[in-house]
Amino acid sequence: MKLGIFQFNPMWGNKNKNLDRIKRSLLSNDKVDLWVLPELCTTGYQLKTNQEVANLAERFPGGSTSGYLKELSRDIDAGIIIGIAERSGKQIYNSAAIFESGKFIGIYRKVHLFYEEKNYFSPGQELPEVFEIKGVKVGVMVCFDWIFPETARTLALKGAQLIAHPANLVLPFCQDAMVTRSIENKVITATANRIGEEARTGESLTFTGCSQVTDVDGARLGQLGQDEENVLVVDIDPPKAEDKSINQYNDLFGDRRDELYFLE
Amino acid sequence: MKLGIFQFNPMWGNKNKNLDRIKRSLLSNDKVDLWVLPELCTTGYQLKTNQEVANLAERFPGGSTSGYLKELSRDIDAGIIIGIAERSGKQIYNSAAIFESGKFIGIYRKVHLFYEEKNYFSPGQELPEVFEIKGVKVGVMVCFDWIFPETARTLALKGAQLIAHPANLVLPFCQDAMVTRSIENKVITATANRIGEEARTGESLTFTGCSQVTDVDGARLGQLGQDEENVLVVDIDPPKAEDKSINQYNDLFGDRRDELYFLE
Repeated sequence: MKLGIFQFNPMWGNKNKNLDRIKRSLLSNDKVDLWVLPELCTTGYQLKTNQEVANLAERFPGGSTSGYLKELSRDIDAGIIIGIAERSGKQIYNSAAIFESGKFIGIYRKVHLFYEEKNYFSPGQELPEVFEIKGVKVGVMVCFDWIFPETARTLALKGAQLIAHPANLVLPFCQDAMVTRSIENKVITATANRIGEEARTGESLTFTGCSQVTDVDGARLGQLGQDEENVLVVDIDPPKAEDKSINQYNDLFGDRRDELYFLE
Repeated sequence: MKLGIFQFNPMWGNKNKNLDRIKRSLLSNDKVDLWVLPELCTTGYQLKTNQEVANLAERFPGGSTSGYLKELSRDIDAGIIIGIAERSGKQIYNSAAIFESGKFIGIYRKVHLFYEEKNYFSPGQELPEVFEIKGVKVGVMVCFDWIFPETARTLALKGAQLIAHPANLVLPFCQDAMVTRSIENKVITATANRIGEEARTGESLTFTGCSQVTDVDGARLGQLGQDEENVLVVDIDPPKAEDKSINQYNDLFGDRRDELYFLE
């Protein structure tokens, strides 16, 4: 299957413009089966008051952004996994929404919030079951979830062949760490990061780009540049992730000694 | 404190010669407070029959190798963590033995056995509590334990400031993955790998050297070459590992969502 990432610099607060750019990029790469897009890439990242967050967040499904993306996924007959600001009742979540060929598939609410996100978002209360998209078992995590090895491990144990990872990375470590996440779980990972800067809170954040796809053996199947607005399209073979053996004696899941971990 | 690693090519089956080389190296670097040495570095790695294993394995404490290393640790007034073949009753373990200034401190029996090790060794039944050595809280793991993120995580949660990691690595991934282990746990790691080849089982193994020390932020404090017989000595600051915060909002341990992990 063909996996696509669109790495770009979202314009803060301008959902129409961001959605239009997303639409043009996705329509112009019509061989892609599954798209992964960055975290909070319809709204921008630095939401500095509760009012701003409330104004920009929407219901998924139900809101206009959700409708737009659902329709786009039908037009391109593909899956879309995209970071958005979600309103659900009185709660606002930093979420990833999942669409497939005209259907809303589900939502993942970021469990490990980073830095000032804790002021404006509620943390998610579960790690998701895998989503079946275009025949692929997809686990979803968002940005800072990467630093907790338990996140990718839990998704892999739940059966994910591919971990889709919308991100707005500012620390320099994640892209190399995702190689380790692939190796330790024998899964494919797709990190869709943004580029550019935001300085709305008085603190300037520079996002690190370098979106990438890693294979089950940790090999990078493709990577974009640090400040490159571009699409990355790679062929992936998700069934390879079903086999957790690394030789005739060792199996990454079978060899786990769960009873010995986290005992105190 | 000064941490030392001795990376070398042990001679198979010749414990006297290997211990003599270890002694000479350690005596000639007398500023080191704590030494980490490779896995199975007194015996060699490929133990191909139960009889060979039984002949080479010894009791720790109690056997002559244990006595030799205890005495050496007194002579150099330092800690020594070293991979050895341990006999305990009818069981043989791939273990790390720990000594400090003339005292036997403890043993760790490798929990995750690699490849044909499963034919000759029994797996350990616990991940160890931290050992206090020269005032440093040390967690110990052996070689293939690295690929299971739960190992380093468990040691860090038990309070390890430093993870000492005797190894006989043949896969190319570990040295980079240990950077991730440092970052995700904010711990120092010391991987003592061997060099050279062994082909006693008809299958030739080439060990990957590149022994290294990583700091709490993943920075490499030092690394040896791929085929270099040498000593690496670096200064480490273990109390840095006590602080798990990465900014005023995030703490690597406080932010864990243990209730959400491994639920099915």
